[in-house]
Amino acid sequence: MTKRQTTVKIFVTGGTFDKDYSEINGELFFKNTHVPEMLELARCKLEVEVGTLMMIDSLDMTDADRRIIVENCRRANEDRIVITHGTDTMVETARVLAHSIRDKTIVLTGAMVPYKFGSSDGLFNLGSSLALVQTLPHGVYISMNGKYFHWDNVRKNSQTGEFEEIK
Amino acid sequence: MTKRQTTVKIFVTGGTFDKDYSEINGELFFKNTHVPEMLELARCKLEVEVGTLMMIDSLDMTDADRRIIVENCRRANEDRIVITHGTDTMVETARVLAHSIRDKTIVLTGAMVPYKFGSSDGLFNLGSSLALVQTLPHGVYISMNGKYFHWDNVRKNSQTGEFEEIK
Amino acid sequence: MTKRQTTVKIFVTGGTFDKDYSEINGELFFKNTHVPEMLELARCKLEVEVGTLMMIDSLDMTDADRRIIVENCRRANEDRIVITHGTDTMVETARVLAHSIRDKTIVLTGAMVPYKFGSSDGLFNLGSSLALVQTLPHGVYISMNGKYFHWDNVRKNSQTGEFEEIK
Amino acid sequence: MTKRQTTVKIFVTGGTFDKDYSEINGELFFKNTHVPEMLELARCKLEVEVGTLMMIDSLDMTDADRRIIVENCRRANEDRIVITHGTDTMVETARVLAHSIRDKTIVLTGAMVPYKFGSSDGLFNLGSSLALVQTLPHGVYISMNGKYFHWDNVRKNSQTGEFEEIK
Repeated sequence: MTKRQTTVKIFVTGGTFDKDYSEINGELFFKNTHVPEMLELARCKLEVEVGTLMMIDSLDMTDADRRIIVENCRRANEDRIVITHGTDTMVETARVLAHSIRDKTIVLTGAMVPYKFGSSDGLFNLGSSLALVQTLPHGVYISMNGKYFHWDNVRKNSQTGEFEEIK
Repeated sequence: MTKRQTTVKIFVTGGTFDKDYSEINGELFFKNTHVPEMLELARCKLEVEVGTLMMIDSLDMTDADRRIIVENCRRANEDRIVITHGTDTMVETARVLAHSIRDKTIVLTGAMVPYKFGSSDGLFNLGSSLALVQTLPHGVYISMNGKYFHWDNVRKNSQTGEFEEIK
Repeated sequence: MTKRQTTVKIFVTGGTFDKDYSEINGELFFKNTHVPEMLELARCKLEVEVGTLMMIDSLDMTDADRRIIVENCRRANEDRIVITHGTDTMVETARVLAHSIRDKTIVLTGAMVPYKFGSSDGLFNLGSSLALVQTLPHGVYISMNGKYFHWDNVRKNSQTGEFEEIK
Repeated sequence: MTKRQTTVKIFVTGGTFDKDYSEINGELFFKNTHVPEMLELARCKLEVEVGTLMMIDSLDMTDADRRIIVENCRRANEDRIVITHGTDTMVETARVLAHSIRDKTIVLTGAMVPYKFGSSDGLFNLGSSLALVQTLPHGVYISMNGKYFHWDNVRKNSQTGEFEEIK
């Protein structure tokens, strides 16, 4: 076995994962990412570096935003990258990344429910993604709710909200 | 890529993971495992089957208990097994398993803090372990707090409570 | 001391208190009330009876809705009533109740953050309200975040989101 | 109505309320009180002042400890005092207080489960107690799980763990 515990880069882009509840107007909004707090709760001993690229709903993500993500993944020293991302267009960002970057392992993940909601799947998904990024070969993957998918074999079922294999 | 989303077996043995708080005498004790409830919170879409082998503190685990664990791992139809286990003797059980079973991927995991404590790392560790068991080659591993270890390259540091590589 | 541990009626009308997060469209919505679950968590030994009158945002509450609330409070056998309510128009409902019912103790309460969010004040407010309804003389009151107000001496400060005395 | 929103003093003495889980040895222990954190979660707008007198299991509370509690209650400027206390000897401390102090409203409260456990009743009990201390006449009371008791009309049922009226 040639396991190396290399540093993992985590890029934050927003999504359900990081939504907060506004006490003033009762709406969901983005403040700061909860990823560092989640890593602390997880007592994460893996060396990770967290960087926030944007804090947006993935439905609002533009081509320009995706170029920022690609550019940051390319320039990162690490070849193991986890990206937190809204679920609605996660597959699209994965495709863009796969077309641009071939020499890194990139795992996109998110949550069905905001982390700040007690009943979030976020911590579980983050745990899975940090494991996958250490063990999967170079490529772009999506990790949600215990399953992982190659970027070109997954879609979000808009009825059920679940990710599923195409083939 | 030849990923197969096979069923994973989860064997529960107790440990910090599953400790409950007794309202009567103020002590920690074992009632039922929280693994199914954790999988539900995780919205786990991976096919898993949970079986409880015992509900004990790993400091109380005897050779006979370990034989039960080995026997159940051997007889399981699945070749991908996650075992929840107390952290104190997790390494010892991993060693016993590694000496008996060579044709399966077995990941032992636990928690530093009981799941029922709000601040538990359990959900994160379970997420990691279910990812690792799908991606690592046959062998016996320990997964804790974002890192994973080959069974013969890990010890629990009793001062810090952390798992660390020997070499 | 002539304390009587009479049954308390809890009427649910919705509000932030009871909002859930939709995993499908990422919006907040009403499903079922969480009050029974909160009472269980509270290990509440006070005899209470929970009835759901409506599940709405208090900004959407109409005069007809308020008549339903008044009518139910009037017809209730109990003279001690707690009403869970959205904060935005809580003061208005309190006023309507005060003009119609004089022989009962009615406490309106709510939450700044939905109960299902880990960081909710809901459980605290429910605890306060159930105490106040047992100890305050007949009248209509608002109970939020450790303070309580007579219905005609309170407003919600829309800037801060806080309830405050008028005089 | 002559409600005054006076400052309330909260004295912390330990008890289940404030127990933490040790990640090193898996035992429950006292570190710091969680009362300020609870008040923050509650978004408590009532003026309170928190003072820690001791951090002990109420089974370990001695006569000397109780004298410290009495002395601090007597010397407090506030005539409204909440005391967090282990449940096992809460009734005894209430009795000692009642024999010494007659011109204040003192409410003792605690929790069946530590606050740091997700499933704690602590926040609810704190909410009740802060309401009771504002509304009850001078005297010493116990507030647990939605009910309150005059100090001389309560016992802890050691079978069920519940507080109940004697008469």
